[in-house]
Amino acid sequence: MTAPAEQDLLALDRAAQDLLFRAARTANTFTDEPVTDAQVAAIHDLIRYGPTAYNGQPLRVLLLRSPESRARLLPYVSSSNRPKTATAPLVAVLAADVDFHERLPELYPHRPQARDWLSDRPARAEQARFSATLQIGYLLVGVRAAGLAAGPMAGFDAAGVTREFFPDGRHEALLLLNLGHPGPDAWERRLPRLSTEEVVWTL
Amino acid sequence: MTAPAEQDLLALDRAAQDLLFRAARTANTFTDEPVTDAQVAAIHDLIRYGPTAYNGQPLRVLLLRSPESRARLLPYVSSSNRPKTATAPLVAVLAADVDFHERLPELYPHRPQARDWLSDRPARAEQARFSATLQIGYLLVGVRAAGLAAGPMAGFDAAGVTREFFPDGRHEALLLLNLGHPGPDAWERRLPRLSTEEVVWTL
Repeated sequence: MTAPAEQDLLALDRAAQDLLFRAARTANTFTDEPVTDAQVAAIHDLIRYGPTAYNGQPLRVLLLRSPESRARLLPYVSSSNRPKTATAPLVAVLAADVDFHERLPELYPHRPQARDWLSDRPARAEQARFSATLQIGYLLVGVRAAGLAAGPMAGFDAAGVTREFFPDGRHEALLLLNLGHPGPDAWERRLPRLSTEEVVWTL
Repeated sequence: MTAPAEQDLLALDRAAQDLLFRAARTANTFTDEPVTDAQVAAIHDLIRYGPTAYNGQPLRVLLLRSPESRARLLPYVSSSNRPKTATAPLVAVLAADVDFHERLPELYPHRPQARDWLSDRPARAEQARFSATLQIGYLLVGVRAAGLAAGPMAGFDAAGVTREFFPDGRHEALLLLNLGHPGPDAWERRLPRLSTEEVVWTL
């Protein structure tokens, strides 16, 4: 008798574990195969059920489909990320809607007063960033659920991208995301991960 | 001929879609069935492969298993969240390690200088919160992958929990998480979700 493998303690089947986490990798190169609006809609239709504080759902996804919009992004991307951003089939700016509270009477109808609890903008912006970042976690899983590779990029001028693409002042850019099918030499060797003993503590 | 359902545009099978997102719900009540350390280890072993900036993996998970540790938490929890926090089989404090950069020479070996890029504490704390929050997104998916219900709670005094449980000054509490099997009347009707048209824009 041997102890069950950790994979076998999960209800999720092995193929899905591999698709979403164990075999999934951050792609650095992509093929030319496009990512369609129908695929993006299917990903969103899945991940929109993930929980957020007050059910506020502040994540917004700006797809840069035109060559002009891609060209506007490139100056804000770090030089090491620029080549893959220029060539990925699809690039998205992931942002938080700081004024998400305006929708709460509809999204959180059993506590309509929640809208007023969030009247302070700095506190609300922090809430918006937190829930939108949770949703980015769900989105990265969802991109992989669609059989696509995700290339999240934190190396960019977030304040600059916010000014360039969200002049309304109510959205904040949080992360850039390349999407597509992995191309040749899409990744290096897997980087080390921390063990459960290093991450999970008990009191 | 009809258009394919959005579920059928995904590589992930329908049962897994339901387990992780479509049928998954935030539980408000739990049965007495325990959540074992082996289950927590299996969840972590899955979700530790999710991407983080600089592969920094700042999320730390503090399991409150003793009655004493649970009692120390309750004063910091909002009154509406206190009953479920008192009765859930397992409660975890999810936190960010603000000094995650110390491990980067090992975790991000091809750019050992990344440690020094993060020498400014406030900027590093923001990075730690961002990547740890992404990881909480993966963790909520992972709890569901284990067939368990997750009960994330943002309604608590985060500064107070940080002082109470992380007096070292290097960790920040971000979210509380109840884990277990859903009990009777574990949830209300599903709250509304935004449509793809409201969330995904194209430029």
